[in-house]
Amino acid sequence: MCQLFALDSDKPTAATFSLAGFAARGGATAEHGDGWGVAFHEGGDCRVFMDAGRASESPLADFLCRHPIRARTIVAHIRRATQGRVGLANCHPFRREAWGRSWTFCHNGDLKDFQPRLEGRYTPLGQTDSEYAFCWLMQELQRSLGDDAAPTPSRLAPRLAELAAQASASGRFNFLLCDGEALYAHASTRLHWVRRRHPFARVRLVDREIEIDLARANRPTDRMVVVATEPLTHGEAWTAFEPGELRVFAGGRSVWSSQAELAAA
Amino acid sequence: MCQLFALDSDKPTAATFSLAGFAARGGATAEHGDGWGVAFHEGGDCRVFMDAGRASESPLADFLCRHPIRARTIVAHIRRATQGRVGLANCHPFRREAWGRSWTFCHNGDLKDFQPRLEGRYTPLGQTDSEYAFCWLMQELQRSLGDDAAPTPSRLAPRLAELAAQASASGRFNFLLCDGEALYAHASTRLHWVRRRHPFARVRLVDREIEIDLARANRPTDRMVVVATEPLTHGEAWTAFEPGELRVFAGGRSVWSSQAELAAA
Repeated sequence: MCQLFALDSDKPTAATFSLAGFAARGGATAEHGDGWGVAFHEGGDCRVFMDAGRASESPLADFLCRHPIRARTIVAHIRRATQGRVGLANCHPFRREAWGRSWTFCHNGDLKDFQPRLEGRYTPLGQTDSEYAFCWLMQELQRSLGDDAAPTPSRLAPRLAELAAQASASGRFNFLLCDGEALYAHASTRLHWVRRRHPFARVRLVDREIEIDLARANRPTDRMVVVATEPLTHGEAWTAFEPGELRVFAGGRSVWSSQAELAAA
Repeated sequence: MCQLFALDSDKPTAATFSLAGFAARGGATAEHGDGWGVAFHEGGDCRVFMDAGRASESPLADFLCRHPIRARTIVAHIRRATQGRVGLANCHPFRREAWGRSWTFCHNGDLKDFQPRLEGRYTPLGQTDSEYAFCWLMQELQRSLGDDAAPTPSRLAPRLAELAAQASASGRFNFLLCDGEALYAHASTRLHWVRRRHPFARVRLVDREIEIDLARANRPTDRMVVVATEPLTHGEAWTAFEPGELRVFAGGRSVWSSQAELAAA
């Protein structure tokens, strides 16, 4: 089973502390040694770094911890291979361009026999169910929302929620999708998130012996959200996603949830 | 003016020596301090690393020199901004997926008023003439060659040569295009290449005080080709591309040239 991580902030932020705890799960404290990847979204810019080995032993992961990259949204994944060989083409985050923006996608779970028709606009590079589902999501979003201008998050989210529900019928479909404007997080079974803002807490990593006073690491006006498969810290209040929930984050806030839409309906 | 670099080999190879000379041009020995990028193609896998600053001062470029990545084809670019702001979205190599493969593209030159219609399948992330031309090339190649199966290099090359000639009417269009199967190199004004195979020469970098005996760095059966805007070494015989020439490299050999096709016609 793979693990997901994201940090979304109102200003470019280095995720060094949280990524250190997350990277420990890539082979050291959990069995996810089949590759890792991290995407740094900064407006329209996006960089993806990945390696096919254990994050806990990767010189590149170590480099990124020692030379933190600041970004508005950071998305990361550690892999335990279930479908597809171990190799870069099967490492998440996957990446495609749509509407003149870089979209990245990470998946935790598995989809059995989920093979809707791909019409050639997006084709997987590797062999995973995850990348196949990503290609299908991007195809269907563009078909529904048109090619011309990038849709706003509030226009895209309801359609994405429908597609996520459709794919979830074939298995576990916990995922993160990001275009640098918004972070879309969907849980079919397991995903957590936490809000960080003033007054910041003193927290301790679950996976490493590191404690940090978030009030010293951040300014009072900073605001961010962390999403992870399992809570990464003790000392702050993580919220579990509802099964089937799609939540949208932007500027370090939760801005939309399919559960709230259902409640309002 | 930007600078291009590629190494294509019959086996996964680290380009450390040649890249060191090339990286020196990113701010140290030449004025190309507006960003750099390098793509490592290994079969269907591809990794791109880039930075918006000077390659000669980049911790990431230094990391890549100290932790060499082996790949069958390595493509690199250093940028001197002519169109588009300095930023990651305007750094080469640009990357898109087509036919289930990662394609990367680097450009040296400038295209004036080259704005053919893009139909939405590929849209630039940044503001450069280079990325616009790349999106157009990929659109036209897919339109001509169909969506279904990836075309062979010998099928793709003649159509690419036509498109390159068409764009070259708008300015200087020296470029490298790669999908990990083949490296397509086009010169409208300036590009050089050199074959490296047994017996290997003793060579000296043009840009740094480094000399190397290629016979000690390679095995007698190794075979590779290096392409660069200007020759990177003294001590081996670089060949200048003919103006308008498209040449295709694969497995460390030159396998197709538009000049040879013309001569045969």
